Amino acid sequence: MTIKYPKGSSHLLTSHSKKVSTKKPINFANRGMSFEAEINQTNQYYLDRGIAVIHKKPTPVQIVNVDYPKRSAAVIKEAYFKEASTTDYNGVYKGKYIDFEAKETKNKTSFPLTNFHEHQIVHMEKCLVQEGIVFVLMSFSSIRRYFLVPASLVIEFWSKQNNNGRKSIPLTVIEERGSEIIPGFSPRIPYLETLDRYFGEGDNFK
Amino acid sequence: MTIKYPKGSSHLLTSHSKKVSTKKPINFANRGMSFEAEINQTNQYYLDRGIAVIHKKPTPVQIVNVDYPKRSAAVIKEAYFKEASTTDYNGVYKGKYIDFEAKETKNKTSFPLTNFHEHQIVHMEKCLVQEGIVFVLMSFSSIRRYFLVPASLVIEFWSKQNNNGRKSIPLTVIEERGSEIIPGFSPRIPYLETLDRYFGEGDNFK
Repeated sequence: MTIKYPKGSSHLLTSHSKKVSTKKPINFANRGMSFEAEINQTNQYYLDRGIAVIHKKPTPVQIVNVDYPKRSAAVIKEAYFKEASTTDYNGVYKGKYIDFEAKETKNKTSFPLTNFHEHQIVHMEKCLVQEGIVFVLMSFSSIRRYFLVPASLVIEFWSKQNNNGRKSIPLTVIEERGSEIIPGFSPRIPYLETLDRYFGEGDNFK
Repeated sequence: MTIKYPKGSSHLLTSHSKKVSTKKPINFANRGMSFEAEINQTNQYYLDRGIAVIHKKPTPVQIVNVDYPKRSAAVIKEAYFKEASTTDYNGVYKGKYIDFEAKETKNKTSFPLTNFHEHQIVHMEKCLVQEGIVFVLMSFSSIRRYFLVPASLVIEFWSKQNNNGRKSIPLTVIEERGSEIIPGFSPRIPYLETLDRYFGEGDNFK
C-alpha cells in the first residue's frame, strides 16, 4: 500500500538532524559538482583496487569560532573559505606523483581560461619542475566529452593570454594535444588508463 | 604617561572583530602546534627555493550551513570536524611522491602508538604499495630531538601491538632504524636533507 500524504506537507517527513542537510548553497565551488562526484567515484575505485592513492584535498577553511558542547561533537560556529594554494587532487600512482585539477565548461568549442586561478597555474608549474605528472581533467558538459590535458598546454595558453592572446583553449587544440577519456560505468572517468596510453606512446607527457 | 585602567575592564580594549580571534580552542588538533609551525616553515622554505612542493592538507570539515551576506564574504555558520582519510602532508620531491605525518610526544624514551590512528596506518600502507616515500616526522619535545622514521617501522609496531605487543616504539629502535634530523634556523626541520642521506646510502628507505 502506498501512503499518500497531502500535498506540500512532505517537509514534515524530513529529518530535523542538522547534520543531514540536503540544501546545497549556490556557490561557484558547486559548479562542477557532478563532475567532482564522478572523479571521486573513480578515485575510490582506484583506491579500493590498489591501483592508485589519489584524494581530493579538503576545502581550505579558516576556522574562527568553535563551540565545545558537553557530550557532543565540536561545532564550528564561524569560519570562512580560504583560497587554496594548490590544485584539488594529488596522490601517487606507480611511484609517480600525480597532481591535477578538474574543470568543467558548458562551452562547446573551447575551454575558457577564466576557469583557472593564478595560484593553480603557479602550483602546476612548480610540480612540473619537480617532475610530477600534472594535468587538467576537462569536462565539456554540453557535448559530454572529457579530456586529459597536460598542464603544459594550459600554462602555455595562460601565458599567451597575459600577452593579449586568446582567452580560451580551442577544442581542436585540446583534441590534438590532450587525450580524450571515454567515460565508463565504473570507473566513471578512467583517467589513469588514458595516462597509461600517454606513457605507452613514449615519454611525451609533458 | 601610562594610562591605568581600572582592574577588570581590560576587555573593553579588546577588538570586537570576530576575525581576529587569538583564543586557541583546547583540542587535540593543537597539541603539535609548534611542531606543525616548524614543518610549515620548512615546507615554505623548500617551496620558495624550488626544492620541493609539499603542503599540509587542510583540516577536513563537513560544512552544513553557510550564510551569503550581500557585499561580504560567505560565512560558514555550522560545520563539523571530519576524520581525515589520509596523512597530513604530501607532495613531490625530485619526481618522487612524498607522504608523511608529523607527530609529537613529551615522552623521553619511547614514542606512544596512541599518537596514530588506524586510517593513517592504512593510508601509509597503501602509499607504500604505490612506491611512494612514506615516513613519520617525530618530535620528542622534552628532549628536543627529531627523527625521520620510515612508515614501515611504525606499521610493524602497529601490527605487533594488535597482537599484544608493546604500545610504543622505543627511542633506541627509532635511533637505530630512523634517522635523526638536526634542527636548524632555516629550514627549521631539514627533513629532505635527512631523506637524501637515506637515498645516498642506497635504496634502503623502506
